[in-house]
Amino acid sequence: MEKTYSIGIDIGGTNTDIGLVRSDGVCIAKSNLATNEYDIAEAYVAEICHRINMLMQQQHIAAIEGIGIAAPTGNYYTGCIENASNLNFKGIIPLQDMVRKHIDVPVTISNDANAAAYGELVYGGAKGLKHFIMLTLGTGIGSGIIVEGKLVHGATGGAGELGHAILIPEGRSCGCGRKGCLETYCSATGIKRTALEMMRDEPSYKGALSQVSENELTSKMVSDAAQEGDPLAIAVFEKTGYLLGIALANAVTFSGPEAIFLMGGPVKAGELLMKPLRKSFAHHLLYTFENSVTIKASELPGNEAAILGAAALTKSRVTI
Amino acid sequence: MEKTYSIGIDIGGTNTDIGLVRSDGVCIAKSNLATNEYDIAEAYVAEICHRINMLMQQQHIAAIEGIGIAAPTGNYYTGCIENASNLNFKGIIPLQDMVRKHIDVPVTISNDANAAAYGELVYGGAKGLKHFIMLTLGTGIGSGIIVEGKLVHGATGGAGELGHAILIPEGRSCGCGRKGCLETYCSATGIKRTALEMMRDEPSYKGALSQVSENELTSKMVSDAAQEGDPLAIAVFEKTGYLLGIALANAVTFSGPEAIFLMGGPVKAGELLMKPLRKSFAHHLLYTFENSVTIKASELPGNEAAILGAAALTKSRVTI
Repeated sequence: MEKTYSIGIDIGGTNTDIGLVRSDGVCIAKSNLATNEYDIAEAYVAEICHRINMLMQQQHIAAIEGIGIAAPTGNYYTGCIENASNLNFKGIIPLQDMVRKHIDVPVTISNDANAAAYGELVYGGAKGLKHFIMLTLGTGIGSGIIVEGKLVHGATGGAGELGHAILIPEGRSCGCGRKGCLETYCSATGIKRTALEMMRDEPSYKGALSQVSENELTSKMVSDAAQEGDPLAIAVFEKTGYLLGIALANAVTFSGPEAIFLMGGPVKAGELLMKPLRKSFAHHLLYTFENSVTIKASELPGNEAAILGAAALTKSRVTI
Repeated sequence: MEKTYSIGIDIGGTNTDIGLVRSDGVCIAKSNLATNEYDIAEAYVAEICHRINMLMQQQHIAAIEGIGIAAPTGNYYTGCIENASNLNFKGIIPLQDMVRKHIDVPVTISNDANAAAYGELVYGGAKGLKHFIMLTLGTGIGSGIIVEGKLVHGATGGAGELGHAILIPEGRSCGCGRKGCLETYCSATGIKRTALEMMRDEPSYKGALSQVSENELTSKMVSDAAQEGDPLAIAVFEKTGYLLGIALANAVTFSGPEAIFLMGGPVKAGELLMKPLRKSFAHHLLYTFENSVTIKASELPGNEAAILGAAALTKSRVTI
C-alpha cells in the first residue's frame, strides 16, 4: 500500500514539536520552536505553518492527509485552545481555523492525553483494541478514553480527566482548587509529595533523598534511590502503586476496557511501580472484570510519542 | 406516523414483569409471573413467551418490532444471563436464543441499569441527549452510561458498574467482597447503614429511628423521619448527598455528560437528598465542567420504568 503522510504538532508551554509522520508511524522529519517566545498567536501559527512547508519541501512530500495538534486545553469539538494557563495566548484561540488559513487540509485538535491514547491506537500497542484507557503520568495526570474505537470527548469536549477523579475525599490539595484528586498522589509531583510526607513522618531516615532540598527533589530521584534499595523510596512507589491500582480499578467499572496503558516519567521506574500497581489493581478490581484487563506501558517511542499521538488525531475525525 | 409495538421484560429475583409497549412509550398491557417458582429455565421461558402471545392477542397486535429483556447479569453481547446469584437458573443461560426459539423477532438483553438508561433516552427525560449517565439506587447501585448516544458495554459487556467504584478506600465492606464501594454508602442499604452508624455514635439519640430494630429499619423509614424533622435522619441524607456528590463529580471526569439521572427508592426523598447532593456535586466538580451538567430524577413513570427500559433496548441493537 502506498505510504501517505500527516503532520503531528505537540504544543507545550515551553516547546512546540512538529513532526512529519509516515502512515506506518515513522516520524521522518522534525522541527521545533520555542512556544513561550511568541506573544501573538498569529505569528506563532504562521511560523508553525512555515515549518510544516519546510519539512514537506525537504522531504519532497507534495501532499499531507491532515494536521493533528495536541495542545493544552485543546478542544476537539471547537478546534480551539481554551484559556490555557501555561501558554502566553490567553482566552479562546481558534487554532484550527488559524492553521487552515495557511494550509488547507483537515486540522484536528485535542489535548495531549487524548492524542496519546489515539497514538497508541493507531501506531502503538492498542492497535485493533476497541476499549482502552491511556493515562499519562507527568506533572499532572491526563487521560484519554477509547470506547468502541473512538475517543470519548463528552458533551463539551472535556471528557477524560481521570487525573481529577477524587481518590481520597478531603485529601491532598490539588492545583484545580479541589482536594484528593488522583494526580496529587500518583503523578510525578504526587510521588515527590509522598516522599516528602514519608520523610517528615520518619525523621530518623538518613538515606539519599534526605540529602536533597525539598525544591530540588524529583520523582526521578525517588526512583533512582528505590532502584538502589532505599527502603523509604521503595515504600513511596509501593504507596503510589497501591493508590493507582484503586484508581484504575475504578476506571474499569466505568468503561470495562481491555487494557490500560501508562505513559510518562514515573512509568520508567518499571517494576518498582508496576509490581505494587498490579497487586493493588487485582485486589481492587470488581470480580466481574477479573482477567479481562491488562495494564501495560505505552509502546510508543518515548521521544516521539507526543508527535505520533498528534499525527494520529488526523485519523480520528468525526462529524458532530 | 403509524404506531409500532415492542415487548419489555423485567426479570427480578422474585417477579418477572412483561409489558406490551407502544412506540410512544405507553405500556398498553402487562402480565407478570413469579420468577422464583421456576427451577428450569426452559419452562420459565416457555411461560414468558406464552404470556407475550396472550398479550398480543388480547390487544389485537399482529406483529412486534422486538423483545427487550432487563435481567440480572444480562449480557448485551452474548445474550445470556451469566451466573446470576439471585435467580434459580444457575450458570450461563442463553436467554436470547431460548426466547427466539419461541418468537422469531430480534431479542436484546442487558442488565436493569443499562435498560433504565436506555429507557430514559428513548421514552424519558434524556430524549435527544448524546452523553448522560443513569444511576439506579436500590439495594445496590446500578448504572448505565450513554456516550455518543449509545450504551457503553465495554470489552466484555460488563461496563457501567459505578456502584462498585471505590469511593472510600478501605471503607465499608461490600457484598462484592471489596471495601468502600459507592453502593455501601449511597444505596438504600447504604443509607440504612449510615443511620445505624450514626445512632451508634450518638447513644443519646431517642428519635423515631431508635424505636425500630436493626433488622426492620429501612431507608424509607429514615426518609420519613427526616421529612418530620428528625435531626439524625436529616444528617443521614446530608452525608449520603455529600458522598454521592463526590461520586457523580468523579463520573463526570470520565465521560463529561450533559446530565446525570437518578432512579430508585432513595430518590423519592426528594430535596432531602437532592439539596446536599447538588451542593456537594457543585463543590467537587472539576471547574472545566462547571454549569455543563445537571442532576435530575428520572422522568420515567416509577411503576413502569423497568418495563419501558427493557422495551427501549429493542432500539439499541448494534452489530458487534
